[in-house]
Amino acid sequence: MSLRGLGVDPRCRCIETESRRIGKHIESVELFPPNSHCKDTEIIATLKITGKEICLDPTAPWVKKVIEKIIANKAP
Amino acid sequence: MSLRGLGVDPRCRCIETESRRIGKHIESVELFPPNSHCKDTEIIATLKITGKEICLDPTAPWVKKVIEKIIANKAP
Repeated sequence: MSLRGLGVDPRCRCIETESRRIGKHIESVELFPPNSHCKDTEIIATLKITGKEICLDPTAPWVKKVIEKIIANKAP
Repeated sequence: MSLRGLGVDPRCRCIETESRRIGKHIESVELFPPNSHCKDTEIIATLKITGKEICLDPTAPWVKKVIEKIIANKAP
């Protein structure tokens, strides 16, 4: 779940992360480096069709693989 | 330069990419995998302070390093 747009900035955007491997449903992925509002990197995926925003765990191997695939010019 | 929000979707968003190493100015990075509108991955960085959106080259080693740093929970 992402708190983005709910008027709770400046804080961390993610309160929980998705554990299921939802790579195939991802339309885009946004990466937020650590900053003064949130000490940990946050990754928010936007899903195809629904446009729903889902927080991903930056430490999960499958999330790293999804990002590596995208950088390598492949669909996740 | 990013064409996002200019009403030209669905097409590729980027018409040129930034060659300078602007990692330290990056607030967030958005990754768009290849899809039916654009055959190549696109990476759009949002800059601190100005909020300006800048397209990055997914094949540039410095861009890959910026993303790796963010995933590793470090500021780019």
